[in-house]
Order: sequence, then structure tokens, then C-alpha cells
Amino acid sequence: MASDYSSTPITLNDVNPKVLKCKYAIRGEILTHAQILYCNIGNPDSLGQKPITFFREVLALCDHPLIVDRSETKSLFSADSVEQAIQILDQIPVRATGLRDKIASGIEARDGFPGDPNDIFLTDGASPAVNSIDLQVIHIALTEVTERNSEMLTISVPSSSIQVHMMMQLLIGSENDGIPCPIPQYPLYSVSITLHRGTHISYYLDEESGWALEISEFENQLKTARSRGVNVRALVVINPGNPTGRVLAEANQREIVEFCRKEGLVLLADEVYQENVYAHDKQFHSFKNRSRSMGFGEKDISLVSFHSASKGYYGECGKRGGYMEFTGFRPEIREQIYKVASVNLCSNISGQILASLIMSPPKVGDESYKSFSAEKEAILSSLARRAKILEDAFNSLEGVTCYKAEGALYSFPRINLPGKAIKAAEEAKTAPDAFYARHLLNATGIVVVPGSEFGQRPGTWHFRCTILLQEDKIPAIVSRLTQFHKQFMDEFRG
Amino acid sequence: MASDYSSTPITLNDVNPKVLKCKYAIRGEILTHAQILYCNIGNPDSLGQKPITFFREVLALCDHPLIVDRSETKSLFSADSVEQAIQILDQIPVRATGLRDKIASGIEARDGFPGDPNDIFLTDGASPAVNSIDLQVIHIALTEVTERNSEMLTISVPSSSIQVHMMMQLLIGSENDGIPCPIPQYPLYSVSITLHRGTHISYYLDEESGWALEISEFENQLKTARSRGVNVRALVVINPGNPTGRVLAEANQREIVEFCRKEGLVLLADEVYQENVYAHDKQFHSFKNRSRSMGFGEKDISLVSFHSASKGYYGECGKRGGYMEFTGFRPEIREQIYKVASVNLCSNISGQILASLIMSPPKVGDESYKSFSAEKEAILSSLARRAKILEDAFNSLEGVTCYKAEGALYSFPRINLPGKAIKAAEEAKTAPDAFYARHLLNATGIVVVPGSEFGQRPGTWHFRCTILLQEDKIPAIVSRLTQFHKQFMDEFRG
Repeated sequence: MASDYSSTPITLNDVNPKVLKCKYAIRGEILTHAQILYCNIGNPDSLGQKPITFFREVLALCDHPLIVDRSETKSLFSADSVEQAIQILDQIPVRATGLRDKIASGIEARDGFPGDPNDIFLTDGASPAVNSIDLQVIHIALTEVTERNSEMLTISVPSSSIQVHMMMQLLIGSENDGIPCPIPQYPLYSVSITLHRGTHISYYLDEESGWALEISEFENQLKTARSRGVNVRALVVINPGNPTGRVLAEANQREIVEFCRKEGLVLLADEVYQENVYAHDKQFHSFKNRSRSMGFGEKDISLVSFHSASKGYYGECGKRGGYMEFTGFRPEIREQIYKVASVNLCSNISGQILASLIMSPPKVGDESYKSFSAEKEAILSSLARRAKILEDAFNSLEGVTCYKAEGALYSFPRINLPGKAIKAAEEAKTAPDAFYARHLLNATGIVVVPGSEFGQRPGTWHFRCTILLQEDKIPAIVSRLTQFHKQFMDEFRG
Repeated sequence: MASDYSSTPITLNDVNPKVLKCKYAIRGEILTHAQILYCNIGNPDSLGQKPITFFREVLALCDHPLIVDRSETKSLFSADSVEQAIQILDQIPVRATGLRDKIASGIEARDGFPGDPNDIFLTDGASPAVNSIDLQVIHIALTEVTERNSEMLTISVPSSSIQVHMMMQLLIGSENDGIPCPIPQYPLYSVSITLHRGTHISYYLDEESGWALEISEFENQLKTARSRGVNVRALVVINPGNPTGRVLAEANQREIVEFCRKEGLVLLADEVYQENVYAHDKQFHSFKNRSRSMGFGEKDISLVSFHSASKGYYGECGKRGGYMEFTGFRPEIREQIYKVASVNLCSNISGQILASLIMSPPKVGDESYKSFSAEKEAILSSLARRAKILEDAFNSLEGVTCYKAEGALYSFPRINLPGKAIKAAEEAKTAPDAFYARHLLNATGIVVVPGSEFGQRPGTWHFRCTILLQEDKIPAIVSRLTQFHKQFMDEFRG
């Protein structure tokens, strides 16, 4: 074949070697399967979840302002959607400060403490891989395969990624600047730190206590890092946890706030799953709420909260919208953040609008309130059921233990793999859990993300499975998985 | 003030020095002005151009599928918009191959030669600055200030930028790989080559002949580069030209195709202004059309065409949509491009839909055809008028010569600055045309981009001014500019 192209200039020898080297993992294998079950990522779109009517009504009206005043519109759209759209459209041609106002009041309603529009940056879902063929990025990216965001298998980069990159850009000046991140961790943080040539410090979450976050672990890591001369700048906390699903307890959050304040660390809080809480005894509280309720104000603690429209009950991955709230920075630092932002942000408008809408949903008395609440409740209660079914299913497997997913969109079961499997993996030059995931994919078409992508205690193995699977399909998936697991264990049991 | 924040950790000394260093040019100055006229960039949104109804109808329906079948919808939306939306919605939950089909047939209709959906990549408007605080990027970025894409002054990065980055990623393996780009040039190309650590080769456009592109200039640059051991991989051509506004003549395009084929260069064709042609004696022809009409097929020449929904008569900057067509690559290279794409692309859905719509606009007989054509014609004829008014205005200024903007969205007048101004600029450690632009901004609030941002023949000075200014405002702008120019010349005339 290729010989036909003999007069075209580019051969494999001409291609950037880094491109040639980079892994093609998931995609290549997936294509060999007729039917694939994407259990690897939290993209509701590709898993059949219907969008929330209210959000889509407002977006449609903002896309096509000419119909806002038409009489037919009144019967097609709810009155509050029209009102929201009119408010937004008034703002957009000039500056979308109105969107930030909406978010600020949404934060205030959520936290019970004031929010300031000037603390809000609207961000887009930009790919951190654009300028970098960094293998780590690519490999991680390739574990995040999503259908709907593009016409081919492409990468679902969370809209919080650009927010994270901005903060790393700001905080990392040299290899000497270190930032602790949880292990296991959604790898965006470690990758971003690497890209900005900082020092990535790991702190381990405690699986035995359901992935709790131990302050003592921080203290040890901080001490070790400082003794190595590392200048520790900030602390990354993901709450609810990805991939662990842990929702932090109030006392724990207070410890973390106090720790950051005492040690002079910026608290970088990934709160993109704030609307995804399933445990009845748990509730989401922002770190801003926690710190303010402890009496710490704007001038006492530096806090950044990342949020995205791709998660929650709304799950609007395809709109690429999110925002970042930052408080507790000196005016001159705020100026620097503005500067970094003005270079990095180039957000699509629908994404910006959506980011403002998720923080200003219908309220009691609004025409769409009842249907909106019903849609939201239906999604969240279904997710809670799915989380429980998967948890039970995983716990019923030989050598598998799985803690309750209190929040977020994932189960993160631990697999105790037989020695023979670990040996076979070594021979195949791959991590044992990647070896397991590969076999699972080949045998069943089920895609999960190996725990080694997120980091884990040496000698432990996990995989991440989204709970977004269509509820009616779960039994079939579970039985395929169970059957595979039995065969795998039979094959490799020592 | 800052002392109040004494207990917050981050001081200016803690901030990434590169961030501190980076220029803040345009924005800082602009904020000092009550009334600003953005004459620097081609963003119709911020300059009051209304969106095309048909595109917005389809986008609105795709955002809110529930209303597609409602009877009220029939009276609110044109039948062909509804039909288009239904087609698109059928595709999206699965894979948006339908969008690429639309683009392929649009290309076929445009060129009279077949288009293949598999040659199309839908791309987003991603910021190339995300991973890089590269000063050059930032400085260029800051010359691209746009209002509507964000709630603060942010950067309008063309949706073609991610396409360019993909190709540079693919083609540049070492410092030894060189790619010639036009001078003057929209700096995306030089920046991308720099970011990917390749060798940027300049070829000069000939201002005296209205910014024509001389093959002899290519040949000289190619010879020089090769004699220096540079491996020349591709050739960048921007048609219609940015910032020059030149629309290439048919014969010239054929020479370029023949040159690339003979020399074994990939032809990277920036064709984002293909719908912006104003000269009555000129017409846009894609390089694909030219090469095919010369009898060169898929296997004879490697050709990449960049396109974006942010330009044209549609000018949908805020939607961040575009596509890239590439033909004439061996199957194994195509595989590599797929790989790079699957890492880089994370396109927002509205942007993808819009990219497909601009290539499949209403056709004769469609309900919306008449109104659509009227809107399109009104915009394009107004742009042609504005281009002429600005051309005449610039040519009436002392020491200023301006060639006709045959296409694209800019005038690029040349200013012969008096020696005293050049000397004053040297003392101010800035380029003479930047010095002029700065004075213009301070005196009038008019923002233009200095020619030194695009490159120009040594000793010549220019500035770029968009022709998108609201037609009714142009007389006022022209008189402010004329008055300023007179004062400037009086002040600095030798």
C-alpha cells in the first residue's frame, strides 16, 4: 500500500520520534471490539444520561436570542429559563460579569458565606496535551476515552485542568517548589506539576479506613520534603475523592484547613464532584465554608476551589465549562493571577453560561423548579443505587474488596492478584492491574482504568470503574465481569 | 494593603518569575481608557455583528432536543434548521461521523473534487499557552484581546491553533526540522514551531506587488536553509493572507503546489478566511482544488487545510469550532495523525456542530435559504465597503501606504515614520511601530497591532487594523486616527 504513496514526502522516519513512541493503549485495543462498555470514565453523555431540561432551555435561548420574545417561546420554554436567558444575553455582548455574579451568589447560597464575582474565573475545557507530547500525559489521556466530545475516540480532559495548570504556572517557579497530592489521585495534578517542572510530593490516602486523609501523613511528607530542601507551596485535596469516592468528614476538613494555615500552604481544593454525594450520613461542604466557619477570612488563608460543569447531576461534559474561585491572595498576587488567566482562558460561551447555571439552578417558586428537582433527584438516586450495586458486586468477587463510593462517580475496588498473574504481568512488562484490565477488555470489552494510573500503595492493585453505567445494563455487565474474574483467577491462581 | 494579608503564604517573591516577567502590554494600557475601540482583532461579536440566524437555529435545537418535534417549533424555526438538527442529533450520542460527512460534502461542493470524512478532524479553540508561559506566546496572545469569549479581557486564540500545533507536533522531531512561514505572518505559526523546538524559516511577501508570494523567494530560502543542513519539512501558506489581506492568484497557487510537490514539502494551507474575499476580480480556491485540477491526487501531494468557524461571514469566535482536512499521507502516517489528534482534541460539541454547519449552509429551495443569503450578503458587502473606506483613509495619511484588502479581515498599512520617532522608540526600547501604536492607543483609545508582531522587512513599519469596525462608527474612528496621525507626525517630523 504505502508504496503507492512513494511520491508523498512524509514517511515514518520523518515523524517526530516522540509521537511514534507514545502509547496508543486503550484506543488500539478498543477498536478490536465490536461492543465496548466504557466503564472507565465519568461521561454521562456517552452512557445515555439525558441532560437537565432547564440548563438546555437556557442554552438554547442564548444560542438563538431572536426567539426570546416570541409568543410560541412561552409555550416551549419555562418562564424562568426565558428570564435567565434574557439576563445572560444582556451581559454577553459587553462583559459576562453577570455570569460571575450568578456564580458568586450561588457560592454564597451553598456556603452561607459571601462570594465575590472578582474571585471567579470562568474556564474552558482545554487540553493540557496541546503543547506537549509528554508520554505521561498521553498515556493518562488515553485512559480517558470519551465518545461524545468528538467524532473519533478522543480525550475527555476535565474543564478543571486549565484551572489546575493556571495555579501550577503561578506557584511553580523552580524544581524546588513542591506540591503534595493524594495517592491514589486523578493524575491531572501530578502531570501538571511535572509539566511545570515542579516537585510532585505524594501523600497516601488510607484505604483501610475507607480512603481517609490522615493529617499525620501530611506532616510526615511535609517534613521529609522540607528536609530535602523542597519549598512546599500548596496542598491538593480532592473532595469528593477521585478515584476513591471518599467524602471528607467535617472534622477532617477542619484539620486540613488548620494545617494549611499553620504551614502557610495554599489549599488547592478539587471540588468538581460537590453535587455527587450518595452516602446518607455524608454531605458536601466546601473548604471555603469550612474555613469561614472556623473564623478564617479572606486574609487568613489562601484557598482555590476548582469546579466543572462536566460532573454533578448535570454532567455536561460536551460543553466544556467550569470555574475557579480563589480567595485569600494579596492584591498584587491577584493581579498576577489575572495575568495568567488572561493568557490561558479562551472559554467557549456555552461552557461559561453553563458554569453559571449550575450555580444558579431553579429555585422554589420558579416554573421549572418541580421538573428540575425531579430530574436531578432521579439522576442522583439512580447513581446512589448503581454505586451500591457495583460495590456489592465487586465485594462478592474472589480477592476483591471495595469501599463504599460515598460520592464522585467511581468505584475503586482493590484486587489481590495471584502471584502467577503478577509474574505474568512482569513478563508482559506491564503493571499487574493493567494486565488484569487488559485481559478484562479483551475478554469482555469492558474498559476500566488500572489503579496504577492513579498511584497506589506499593504491592496493592486496583481498578477504577465509573458508576455511570446505565442502570438497566448493570446486571449484564456485572455477570460478564464476574464470569471473567472467575476465569482469570482460575487461570492464574497459584 | 498587602500587610493585611501578612498571614497568607504567597508573596510576589513566591510567584513563578516567568509569570512576573511576562508582558502585560495591551491589557494594562487599555484599562486606563474609558472608551476603547478594538481595531486590533477580527472578532465580529465584540464589534456588534449579529450572528447568522440559520446557524443559531440549528445550535439551539441541538442544545434542546426536546422541542424538535413540538408544533410551536415549526413556527419558531425554519424547516431546514429542524431537519439539520434532527440529522445531527441522530449522530451525536454515538459518534459524530455525520458532522464529518457534512464537512466532506461541503468541501466537495466547494472544490468540485471529492472530500473524504476520514480526512477531517474537528477541533476546538484551545489555548496554545496552556502549558507554556513562553513570553513570545503571551506577548502575541496579549495582542489578541477579545471581549466576548470571556468575562475579562482574554485571548482569542484561533480554533486553527490546535490544528497547527498538531501538525508541528507531527512534523518537528528535532531543531533540525525547518518550516518556512510567510513574513508578515499571523504569529501562530512561528510560535508553534518555536514551542515544538523546530527551526522557523522566514520567506518574505512582496509588499510592492500587493503582498504577492514569489516562488523565487521560496527557492532562495529553501536553498539557504538546506545549505545550513536544515531538513525542510513543510511550507506554510496563508490564503487569504493575514495580516496582508492578499488573495492568491490561480497561477501563483499552482506554482506553490508544483513547488511543494517537486521539493517534497507538506503544504500547510491556512484557509480560515476562505469566505472573506472582497476583491471583485478575486475568488477563493482551496489548494486542494488547485492541486486536484492540476491532476495531482491523494498520492501525489501532502496537503493540510486549516479552517475555523471564527472567521468568514459567520464569525462565531465564541463557539470555538474548526476543522482540519489532510490528504496525501501514507496510511501509517495517517495512523500517527489519528494518534496525535486523539491526544489533542477535546472539542466542545457546539463548536463541532458549527464547523459542520459552515460547510453545509442552506441550499436553494431550503426554507431559510433566502434570509440566510441576505444575511450573508449584507455582512460581506458591508465588509467590502469598510475595507475600501479604511484603505482610502490610510492612503490619505502622510507617509502611509495601504494595499487593498482583497480578503480576510484586516488592513495592513505601512507607515514611513520620521527619524525622530524611530529615535524616540529606540530610547523607549520599543519597535517604532509599537511606539506609534502605543501613542495611538493613549491618544485615542484605538487599539491596533504593530507590524513588528507579524514580522516585516527590516526598516519598514506597519500596523494591522481590523475591517470589522461597525460601519457607522468608521467615520468617527477615521477622523480620530487622522487627527492623531497629523499630531504625531508634527511632533516627530525631523
